[in-house]
Amino acid sequence: MSQHDRVTCAYHEAGHAVVAALLPEADPLHKVTIIPRGRALGVTMQLPEADRYSHSKPYLEAQIAILMAGRVAEELFLSQMTSGAANDIERATELARKMVCELGMSPLGPVLFRRPASAWDTDARAAGFSEQVARRVDDEIRALVMRGYETARQIIARERAAVKGLATELLEVESVDADRLKALIAQHVVPATPAITA
Amino acid sequence: MSQHDRVTCAYHEAGHAVVAALLPEADPLHKVTIIPRGRALGVTMQLPEADRYSHSKPYLEAQIAILMAGRVAEELFLSQMTSGAANDIERATELARKMVCELGMSPLGPVLFRRPASAWDTDARAAGFSEQVARRVDDEIRALVMRGYETARQIIARERAAVKGLATELLEVESVDADRLKALIAQHVVPATPAITA
Amino acid sequence: MSQHDRVTCAYHEAGHAVVAALLPEADPLHKVTIIPRGRALGVTMQLPEADRYSHSKPYLEAQIAILMAGRVAEELFLSQMTSGAANDIERATELARKMVCELGMSPLGPVLFRRPASAWDTDARAAGFSEQVARRVDDEIRALVMRGYETARQIIARERAAVKGLATELLEVESVDADRLKALIAQHVVPATPAITA
Amino acid sequence: MSQHDRVTCAYHEAGHAVVAALLPEADPLHKVTIIPRGRALGVTMQLPEADRYSHSKPYLEAQIAILMAGRVAEELFLSQMTSGAANDIERATELARKMVCELGMSPLGPVLFRRPASAWDTDARAAGFSEQVARRVDDEIRALVMRGYETARQIIARERAAVKGLATELLEVESVDADRLKALIAQHVVPATPAITA
Amino acid sequence: MSQHDRVTCAYHEAGHAVVAALLPEADPLHKVTIIPRGRALGVTMQLPEADRYSHSKPYLEAQIAILMAGRVAEELFLSQMTSGAANDIERATELARKMVCELGMSPLGPVLFRRPASAWDTDARAAGFSEQVARRVDDEIRALVMRGYETARQIIARERAAVKGLATELLEVESVDADRLKALIAQHVVPATPAITA
Amino acid sequence: MSQHDRVTCAYHEAGHAVVAALLPEADPLHKVTIIPRGRALGVTMQLPEADRYSHSKPYLEAQIAILMAGRVAEELFLSQMTSGAANDIERATELARKMVCELGMSPLGPVLFRRPASAWDTDARAAGFSEQVARRVDDEIRALVMRGYETARQIIARERAAVKGLATELLEVESVDADRLKALIAQHVVPATPAITA
Repeated sequence: MSQHDRVTCAYHEAGHAVVAALLPEADPLHKVTIIPRGRALGVTMQLPEADRYSHSKPYLEAQIAILMAGRVAEELFLSQMTSGAANDIERATELARKMVCELGMSPLGPVLFRRPASAWDTDARAAGFSEQVARRVDDEIRALVMRGYETARQIIARERAAVKGLATELLEVESVDADRLKALIAQHVVPATPAITA
Repeated sequence: MSQHDRVTCAYHEAGHAVVAALLPEADPLHKVTIIPRGRALGVTMQLPEADRYSHSKPYLEAQIAILMAGRVAEELFLSQMTSGAANDIERATELARKMVCELGMSPLGPVLFRRPASAWDTDARAAGFSEQVARRVDDEIRALVMRGYETARQIIARERAAVKGLATELLEVESVDADRLKALIAQHVVPATPAITA
Repeated sequence: MSQHDRVTCAYHEAGHAVVAALLPEADPLHKVTIIPRGRALGVTMQLPEADRYSHSKPYLEAQIAILMAGRVAEELFLSQMTSGAANDIERATELARKMVCELGMSPLGPVLFRRPASAWDTDARAAGFSEQVARRVDDEIRALVMRGYETARQIIARERAAVKGLATELLEVESVDADRLKALIAQHVVPATPAITA
Repeated sequence: MSQHDRVTCAYHEAGHAVVAALLPEADPLHKVTIIPRGRALGVTMQLPEADRYSHSKPYLEAQIAILMAGRVAEELFLSQMTSGAANDIERATELARKMVCELGMSPLGPVLFRRPASAWDTDARAAGFSEQVARRVDDEIRALVMRGYETARQIIARERAAVKGLATELLEVESVDADRLKALIAQHVVPATPAITA
Repeated sequence: MSQHDRVTCAYHEAGHAVVAALLPEADPLHKVTIIPRGRALGVTMQLPEADRYSHSKPYLEAQIAILMAGRVAEELFLSQMTSGAANDIERATELARKMVCELGMSPLGPVLFRRPASAWDTDARAAGFSEQVARRVDDEIRALVMRGYETARQIIARERAAVKGLATELLEVESVDADRLKALIAQHVVPATPAITA
Repeated sequence: MSQHDRVTCAYHEAGHAVVAALLPEADPLHKVTIIPRGRALGVTMQLPEADRYSHSKPYLEAQIAILMAGRVAEELFLSQMTSGAANDIERATELARKMVCELGMSPLGPVLFRRPASAWDTDARAAGFSEQVARRVDDEIRALVMRGYETARQIIARERAAVKGLATELLEVESVDADRLKALIAQHVVPATPAITA
């Protein structure tokens, strides 16, 4: 891994981690690392406090913002856009699609929107295969992803110190655990936002 | 199951049950429980009085309202929207689709609307694959689901005491049978609506 | 079968039978019964006078009206709309589709309208897969079904006595044969329409 | 076969035969019969004078007019529209589709219009899967079929005597061969159209 | 083969050959024959001077014009349009489609336009499945074919003598080889176009 | 291989190579050859300096410009457009599609745009199957490819000497390695653009 790839990765993961730490609805952080595993350059791991049977709308919105935060950090600190965000984009879009089409969490309401595999199959449990509905579904999905992107952008713009501090430490020690993350963020976080806790 | 998940489940099922109890066309209630079984956190069981050969429009409309009532209760009592309503949304949308496309129970009239698997297959017994018809079908399906949501919202807003009473009892004893349900609802129900019986 | 289901079925079949008896183009009635067989609650049986090699437009229009008459009777006598008409709706829509798309019996003219299984397959013997044609085909199919519904509604509104008489007898004796049907209808039929014969 | 079916068939085949006899581009008539074979009630047989390697536009237009002539005769003589024309409609539409989409015989020009089986397959040798082209193709196909219908209508309206004469003979002797057909038509044909020969 | 079919074929092949001989970008002619082989009534054979690794835009445009020339000759000399051009139409449309969709040889630019087999398949290397793009692609394909038709029409209208001379010789001797073709065309060609060589 | 094909190939590869050498984000050149291998007439090989884990937006834009440069060189030096660019067009379009639909590198934002294989399949992780989104996606893909084409055109128009020098050398020696390429480009490159390095 080139030094440039290491720096990219450190800021990308630091972005994920800081946004995850500062969104109260998100699962708590477990570990952040820039040691490659498999096809991933780095990983930000979260641990749900308890087995969750269902997810709330703010929790899913937080997930989308966390997924967007990797690209946002690359843009704000390194002025770059890379293919490293492809998987984040895929997962964020899928979460947004689920919220709109299956979970009734958009202005379109609690209706299932799914075009059945073979058009109007009798078994298909779905509404929505007119172009008009498809357009509104597309708009809502895109709006949810862009809102998550904006949330991530605002947090990272405000907490530049925390992101930079974590990225610097990652470049030195490669992995940071939950306790050290809490300490780092407590040290750097902008004090004017007391309501947000890790 | 976390305490928060238990509370969510109790209000969700109490919503289903109270709306089912107060809609005269609905099948009578048999049991409500928040003991998880399979992938479901809780269950509201209804028993048809006799084997029904066919279902009336008000019966199907009541079913949609009952399915919507779980989410409505979460919204009104817990100010939350969760993924727990996914299955309710799917079933309500499918009922609405059947009413519009197969049962002639919408302003589109007694016509079968079904796009055949392979476009205009000779065997296909259906009309409706123009974009114009697809849009009207989508509108009617969504209108039926939203009407059921509104029915549930009005009943639960009026009968907050009954829903809260049932949810509280569910959190204590986990299961409530038909007789106790009748008693609970009789105790809490708003007296100004004498025409509605369990 | 509950008493309510029996009444529903009796009026549904009586509707089919009276409209079949009074439309001169229809096949003659053979028997009406409310004894369930298979998934059908009741049956109205017609017998073609001779093996027919081809069907005229008025004959097919009469068939659609007869299929609609079951739901119409439920609406006019019982003020209800049930899922029992699902099969009637499917068959009426298919007859209308055939008339428009295969038999040249609509203002669209003697042209085959069929979207081939795999889009513009070389083997496909069909016109009509533009959205514009699809919309006009949809409109004509719906118009034919609604016309049949209106024909049934007018006959049943005028011949309430005959439908009620037949339904009452069906509830008593469960099956009525051709001769008794003729007698019943002759007894009840409104005299001002001498041109219509069973 | 009922007497009504026999009359229908006689006029239907007489329509085919007279239009075929009077269109100079058509293949010569071989035999007309109302003896049922297979699913066909009657048959009008033509014999190409020589093996043809290719077909001209007027020949194909004549074929469409001949196919339409069965229904036209039923309409003009019996004031009826029956399902007996289904196969004629299918074949006429397919001829028109070939002329427009494969043979460059419409104002759309010598371009192949065929939507490939799997959308834009590399192997697909075709233009035309935009909605705009689909609409124009539909319009041209319908125009060709309707033009054939109009040609048949004009010939049969003018040659009522010939059609009636042939139908009457068919009802008596069931089959008429080429020589007798020529004689019959020569006897009945309106003299003011000397340019048209059998 | 009837005499009419032989004449049709002779002019059809003479059209192909004369346009091929007079378009400088076309492969040189090898042989023209009206001896049927397989399903083809006649053949015009061209021989590339060397194995070509790639084809230029003028070469492909010439191919389309040559393919159109058969029908053009039938129209100008015999005032007829036959099904014999079906294969020419298919091949010309496919060449035009390749030029527009794969070779960047239209105003749409060097972009691949191909609708993937299964919609937006990940593997699909293509743009262009919106209706807007489909319409522009259709327009460009049609424009290329029509331009080839017009090129052929202008050449054949000017070189009537050469086409007639070749067709006459084909009817006498059935096959004409490259040297004789050159001689024939040199003898008949209109002198005012010295820049065009065989 | 004909001399014309050799010249075409030399300029085509020289175009690829010079644009690759002068775009700072591109991978360094390894070798250029006009010795055919497999179906390719010539090859321009680049070597990434290190294994790259991810690609930046400017790197992908450079790739598109390099792919376009072959056709651009043919147009500017030989005034021709050939089918030899088919593979370049396919790869450039696919890169542009990835940037827009998977990597969030267009004004449409960090959203996955992919029409699922079987319409609205539950498993599908994607937005974007309305016509409106399809049109915007098409526009962005085309814009990216055309921008790469314009970049290549500007570089080659300015560096005509370098392209001509390399093509001439390729026609003599058939293969040019990295060092010689650097020397050639240093010798010919227009001095007014010091910021661009090989």
